[in-house]
Amino acid sequence: MPKLKAVFLNTSLKTTDETSHTEALMEEVQAIYKEKDVESEIIRIADYKIKLGVQEDMGNGDEWPEIYDKVMSSDIVIIGTPLWLGEKSSLATQVVERLYGSSSKTNDKGQAVFYNKVGGVVVTGNEDGAKHASASILYALSHIGFVIPPNVDAYWVGEAGPGPSYIEGGKENDFTKGHVRMLAYNTIHLATMLKNTPIPAEGNTLD
Amino acid sequence: MPKLKAVFLNTSLKTTDETSHTEALMEEVQAIYKEKDVESEIIRIADYKIKLGVQEDMGNGDEWPEIYDKVMSSDIVIIGTPLWLGEKSSLATQVVERLYGSSSKTNDKGQAVFYNKVGGVVVTGNEDGAKHASASILYALSHIGFVIPPNVDAYWVGEAGPGPSYIEGGKENDFTKGHVRMLAYNTIHLATMLKNTPIPAEGNTLD
Amino acid sequence: MPKLKAVFLNTSLKTTDETSHTEALMEEVQAIYKEKDVESEIIRIADYKIKLGVQEDMGNGDEWPEIYDKVMSSDIVIIGTPLWLGEKSSLATQVVERLYGSSSKTNDKGQAVFYNKVGGVVVTGNEDGAKHASASILYALSHIGFVIPPNVDAYWVGEAGPGPSYIEGGKENDFTKGHVRMLAYNTIHLATMLKNTPIPAEGNTLD
Amino acid sequence: MPKLKAVFLNTSLKTTDETSHTEALMEEVQAIYKEKDVESEIIRIADYKIKLGVQEDMGNGDEWPEIYDKVMSSDIVIIGTPLWLGEKSSLATQVVERLYGSSSKTNDKGQAVFYNKVGGVVVTGNEDGAKHASASILYALSHIGFVIPPNVDAYWVGEAGPGPSYIEGGKENDFTKGHVRMLAYNTIHLATMLKNTPIPAEGNTLD
Repeated sequence: MPKLKAVFLNTSLKTTDETSHTEALMEEVQAIYKEKDVESEIIRIADYKIKLGVQEDMGNGDEWPEIYDKVMSSDIVIIGTPLWLGEKSSLATQVVERLYGSSSKTNDKGQAVFYNKVGGVVVTGNEDGAKHASASILYALSHIGFVIPPNVDAYWVGEAGPGPSYIEGGKENDFTKGHVRMLAYNTIHLATMLKNTPIPAEGNTLD
Repeated sequence: MPKLKAVFLNTSLKTTDETSHTEALMEEVQAIYKEKDVESEIIRIADYKIKLGVQEDMGNGDEWPEIYDKVMSSDIVIIGTPLWLGEKSSLATQVVERLYGSSSKTNDKGQAVFYNKVGGVVVTGNEDGAKHASASILYALSHIGFVIPPNVDAYWVGEAGPGPSYIEGGKENDFTKGHVRMLAYNTIHLATMLKNTPIPAEGNTLD
Repeated sequence: MPKLKAVFLNTSLKTTDETSHTEALMEEVQAIYKEKDVESEIIRIADYKIKLGVQEDMGNGDEWPEIYDKVMSSDIVIIGTPLWLGEKSSLATQVVERLYGSSSKTNDKGQAVFYNKVGGVVVTGNEDGAKHASASILYALSHIGFVIPPNVDAYWVGEAGPGPSYIEGGKENDFTKGHVRMLAYNTIHLATMLKNTPIPAEGNTLD
Repeated sequence: MPKLKAVFLNTSLKTTDETSHTEALMEEVQAIYKEKDVESEIIRIADYKIKLGVQEDMGNGDEWPEIYDKVMSSDIVIIGTPLWLGEKSSLATQVVERLYGSSSKTNDKGQAVFYNKVGGVVVTGNEDGAKHASASILYALSHIGFVIPPNVDAYWVGEAGPGPSYIEGGKENDFTKGHVRMLAYNTIHLATMLKNTPIPAEGNTLD
């Protein structure tokens, strides 16, 4: 069987010259992918010029198509987001808008193009909001064609109020470590199943 | 001016014979109300037989009307909830359903009956979900006629994963204490303003 | 292969002596299950005495264990809910709380007991809230061990404001029909895959 | 008393050269403001270069400070958003992030700078999501210092599935018209109250 491929879309508001706690948590997942021979890449969305809109290519130097191509060539797509006021980032919202923009495209069997891919989320914040952000992102992925395996929401948030972020405060959290492990393994397990047995094109084509 | 009155609706899943962390946090708010001469009462919703439905009185021994009367005689209504999977409790959802069941009733000026009351929330959980639960409850209150003052979401949640609840883990949290204070004072400030100057019946009657 | 089994948990606030729009939409899904030889049952949660709490059996005549047994003997679990103020019903919230109460139980391989089951949602309301309710329920199912196939949120809501409910207003809606079809087929497809190839117990056990 | 001022922040993904349904609904609110002698301005956020981040001024040509100044000189702030997958737009999320970036600034009494301002929302979509988007935005505003009057969520969404947008489908909707009226009048009523009687600086300062 060909190697599995995963792409991480990090929607931190910071470009790669700055440390991202969300990326640090993604790297924990990535370490397991490496061990299990899954090829993976982390993309910092803030490094790209993503135009506003819900078309596949908004033109005018829009760099979303590059990211879309990476999504399309991956079996596993993990969206990572920081939290502000208990919500996913504006870039996470934009990534969902842009993915949605391709949701009526079909594969050669007539299913949505995202069929047979699996999705997951990684969330970090200094406090509160991880489950709400996860629910929103996983729902969006599921609604446009992704399979959501069990326990694919790996997150860390601290106690209510200001405080340390993941790198300082969360690296030793056992709950988070357990969820990193489940996210990594369950995305691999389901992606492998779907590679071996794609979802039949019955009852789910868009025509 | 007549004394202000506040009612706390504690939607813990436990009856009063069991300790409620949400109630412990409510008591912090209540202590300030006492100091400021606001009369208040904490009601444990689980002690009552609340029938399912969205009528004012579902009959058949429905005890909601007793609670509704306490809401109607109060200037300030605080809903408190624990969290499960990042969401407010089923009883909190039911309290919102039952309040909603009276949302088309009007006062003598033709406004919704909840006009000139102020709302707030108190949330506790061992981890994550307070802001999402607060947003849901405050929105519901605002949509049926309550005024939402600034900073009326007092909450405590711990770090991601299993861990202590509010009484063991949160009593000394300064962020939570600050929010208790803002919740208590801002509900008093706005309730006082609305008592002195009720919202004019212009553009907001239900006929 | 043994027949697949599905259970629908209808969290309408009404007991079976009253018409449920959510149930009418569930019956559309059920018709496809019948055609495809999937055994199914619709349960009206309001007919049962479900105690408040998050233990598997709250005692005192708690009838949740009967429902839990039906969930455990099913391959597919569909939660259906009406909407009030844009949110799932109090009973839907309670079903999630009770399922959560068993989330640390394990199967003989050490995975959560809900592994290898697939989940979906059916939502009806006279207006607005279906996606939010779907996100909340699907997230909860995924977080406790269910697989979420693509497009398993079948819903109908009408235009903003008061108006007809599903039976009068939604039966001919093509979007809803398409989603009924995708929900039914994709739950069958994924449940079949998981029956043939259960998720390996690697990286996802709870010990 | 000096005239009241309102600012509408339209977070449509389109710049002013394109028709915005959200703006059309904002204009209904604006017509009432005009009648009642409230000065108002609609800002299309997509026309500005807003940098990612949560500082007041992200530098590098960041045009948020211009918008922040308009917010600060207004008594009423209305955020308007379209819907994608049942969620507010990425620009709405960004506006919230940027407002949040000033939430620890204080006025001369030591309260958050947004105290004594009132907030509201306007939402349009071809289907589903208005209440969830409203809850999210109103909560954020309330959490950073705004007062939320009753019934300040004016929205229109159509029936489930693809269909007309507000301008074609919603202009005659009586529910939406009623909510436009309540949003306009209640923001005026509360802003007037707060102008006459600002929230006392007791229990709510940030020091």
